[in-house]
Amino acid sequence: MNNDEFRHWGHRVIDWVADYLKNVEQYPVASRVKPGDIRSRLPAEPPANAEPFDSILRDVEEIILPGITHWQSPNFFGYFPSNNSGPSILGELLAAGLGVQGMLWATSPACTELETHVLDWLVDLLGLPQPFKSSSTGGGVIQDSASSATLCAILAARERATAGRSNAAGSDGSLVAYASSQAHSSVEKGVRIAGLGSDNLRLIDVDEKFAMRPDRLDEAIRADRAAGRRPAFVCATVGTTSSTAIDPVRAIGEICREHGLWLHVDGAMAGTACLCPEFHYLHDGLELADSYAFNPHKWMFTNFDCDCFFVADRGQLIRTLSILPEYLRNQATESGAVIDYRDWQIPLGRRFRALKLWFVLRSFGVEGLRARVRRHIELAHQFAAWVQDDPRFELAAPVPLSLVCFRHRDGDTANQQLLERLNASGRLLLTHTRLDGKLTLRLSIGQTNTESRHVEEAWRAIQETASGS
Amino acid sequence: MNNDEFRHWGHRVIDWVADYLKNVEQYPVASRVKPGDIRSRLPAEPPANAEPFDSILRDVEEIILPGITHWQSPNFFGYFPSNNSGPSILGELLAAGLGVQGMLWATSPACTELETHVLDWLVDLLGLPQPFKSSSTGGGVIQDSASSATLCAILAARERATAGRSNAAGSDGSLVAYASSQAHSSVEKGVRIAGLGSDNLRLIDVDEKFAMRPDRLDEAIRADRAAGRRPAFVCATVGTTSSTAIDPVRAIGEICREHGLWLHVDGAMAGTACLCPEFHYLHDGLELADSYAFNPHKWMFTNFDCDCFFVADRGQLIRTLSILPEYLRNQATESGAVIDYRDWQIPLGRRFRALKLWFVLRSFGVEGLRARVRRHIELAHQFAAWVQDDPRFELAAPVPLSLVCFRHRDGDTANQQLLERLNASGRLLLTHTRLDGKLTLRLSIGQTNTESRHVEEAWRAIQETASGS
Repeated sequence: MNNDEFRHWGHRVIDWVADYLKNVEQYPVASRVKPGDIRSRLPAEPPANAEPFDSILRDVEEIILPGITHWQSPNFFGYFPSNNSGPSILGELLAAGLGVQGMLWATSPACTELETHVLDWLVDLLGLPQPFKSSSTGGGVIQDSASSATLCAILAARERATAGRSNAAGSDGSLVAYASSQAHSSVEKGVRIAGLGSDNLRLIDVDEKFAMRPDRLDEAIRADRAAGRRPAFVCATVGTTSSTAIDPVRAIGEICREHGLWLHVDGAMAGTACLCPEFHYLHDGLELADSYAFNPHKWMFTNFDCDCFFVADRGQLIRTLSILPEYLRNQATESGAVIDYRDWQIPLGRRFRALKLWFVLRSFGVEGLRARVRRHIELAHQFAAWVQDDPRFELAAPVPLSLVCFRHRDGDTANQQLLERLNASGRLLLTHTRLDGKLTLRLSIGQTNTESRHVEEAWRAIQETASGS
Repeated sequence: MNNDEFRHWGHRVIDWVADYLKNVEQYPVASRVKPGDIRSRLPAEPPANAEPFDSILRDVEEIILPGITHWQSPNFFGYFPSNNSGPSILGELLAAGLGVQGMLWATSPACTELETHVLDWLVDLLGLPQPFKSSSTGGGVIQDSASSATLCAILAARERATAGRSNAAGSDGSLVAYASSQAHSSVEKGVRIAGLGSDNLRLIDVDEKFAMRPDRLDEAIRADRAAGRRPAFVCATVGTTSSTAIDPVRAIGEICREHGLWLHVDGAMAGTACLCPEFHYLHDGLELADSYAFNPHKWMFTNFDCDCFFVADRGQLIRTLSILPEYLRNQATESGAVIDYRDWQIPLGRRFRALKLWFVLRSFGVEGLRARVRRHIELAHQFAAWVQDDPRFELAAPVPLSLVCFRHRDGDTANQQLLERLNASGRLLLTHTRLDGKLTLRLSIGQTNTESRHVEEAWRAIQETASGS
């Protein structure tokens, strides 16, 4: 594909994406293929010689598209959203075209400096504590996901707790981590990866709103200390995956300070709400945290992957992850005047992800972002009110943000059938969780183009399906 | 940005990228900005209201571009390449537009099935052992980077060595890992992350070609065993970062089998050469390895990120990384008939990266890929011959592939000055390493559009600069 052909086919792919996004709500939301269907349509061997690009695009349409579950449909209400937007897609395109590596400041200075700058912007926008700024003791970095951010936090906590001797001297199986029973699975995964062992993760009881009980955390830490173990890390969640429960960060933070534990706050979904000042209460007590993460790739119109991870003391993180081989040495690094983000993450290489985040912030403007977030939250509250008004249904959890957890009163089997029928209809996609031991449906609002008519239609589909009509 | 505006600006960004790639060789390769230059031109606060897209594109041109080191310049000879191509950029664009999550088969079946299929293709194309195929006991997965692949291998090795009890019972600081003194820094980083501790990584001596000495590996393993430690993991490198040295995989593999160690083979750069049958010798003995990785994002015209990671026994990897919370349960997963790639990697979420790899394989065709790889290797050998013919210079290492390590005979200071002057000239970009204790210049060929005239011009610049002319 020469330069002219790239230009030609590039316009065609842009048109394809524009058409796709224009028409996406007409597709059945969940793919209907069976395991193996897609592979059975692909040739056993790659082509020996170049194929024309139009035949590739035709296969995208005919083979790939039927295997797509349409996360960008405004009728997608599953999991948490993973939304995108025009400016974000174009930022990703530009990053792919520039094709720079941002592992060091020196390998493309703009890649590092734009990232630092935009993450400092977000500290103010989200009302985060000032130490999370690069101009203070900490700073922000874009990770691929909240899983990786959590892992980095666990690793930094491990090194701090063992004074950098997490090997033979430090890692005697006595370090303990804590999170609520509702915390994301990535906490256990991170604890396992870091070598603490799943057995050394304590899942703390939650209250009736599914938020961590600080009294139980305190008891668990004291019990571990009394048994000679070394409590090292707590993950508090602001907006759990099951139900967007809000752990009490201040109370948890005070316990962490008293006992010298690293506090990481996972705001992967809910963080975006804090663009709006009226939701800053979600972050109350965050000045007691050592690290924090939220995902613009969930609810802030920035396509995956874009997790923003902030630390209050960048030295702790860098000491944990820095290794400098000869072939990466350079004057800028040795001057100490620059950030080398490879020391802030697991991998070495990194894309220019700050571009898409910058494009989104500028194209929407802060007020534009706030308006869309507020609208999603209003729609969720509207839906919750409809659920409450229908005697067949009940809310299963509070609705602080844009996720509604609800269920049919007829029990697990009825809810399982309802879920399967709804998703099979193609009209919408919901997922489930289990709260108080009961199967619970989740309607998560956050796709960029979800409007009231989509939520109304979702409720209509739910009511009709529940009636068997 | 509405749908029509996306279409309009999308065409403009495609044109911008096409123009950029057309003209990229005219820019000074290395950015000339000083630390802080880029940030000083960015506003202190994000805009309250939406900004027009043309002002954003203007800022890309005026503020960002001066801070770019042009990895896609055919005059970029630094590090290892991180190349791209038209089809790959369009694959990334399409993935961003579709915006699907591939964490589970169920979250977008085509995302998983295309990836499995294309990685099975690569097993045959690269002449990898059949157990690395998904139709056998193993399979392949796309990771962001070789660093992450190495970490996954270390983690699987750790769990195998401790029978899944890497916590209190298993992780007593006795596990030991081995790599050559020339292995990539990500091995030490992975060993540290996994909690083995840097002190438990043995860097094995290399021979005169900078390849690991199997006799020294065997001695080290025996010494550790005698001291009561538990050797668990070896990383062999096929194409080291410093000099593309080729560790003897067969001899290392036999030692690993004898002592029951996990063998990971890191072919991040060199793997792509094995598209050509005449380079399959690089992989001799690979059937003794437990895992293998190479990076299409280095030398196979697929923009970062795209590392292909293969395991011979997928069960080991999945048991290491699988955690299944309620909100991710689904029928397809429970049927066991599908792959859920979240269990093959550190993060949970994942992009549809197989699209760009598929686009590249089809747009170039296998023969097209081979022709370019062979051309790069020829150019490197041509350059090496010129170095050998100039009495002022010497080769510092063998040239098995597309990297030439060389130096001026006048010593470190002369080479440092030469490097700095060359890079400051903007005509090309080289980086350095240290071999046999001596500062060594690296000329790495692999940008997609590097042709003989670029290599000739590079040699001319080096000669002129060495002459002080």
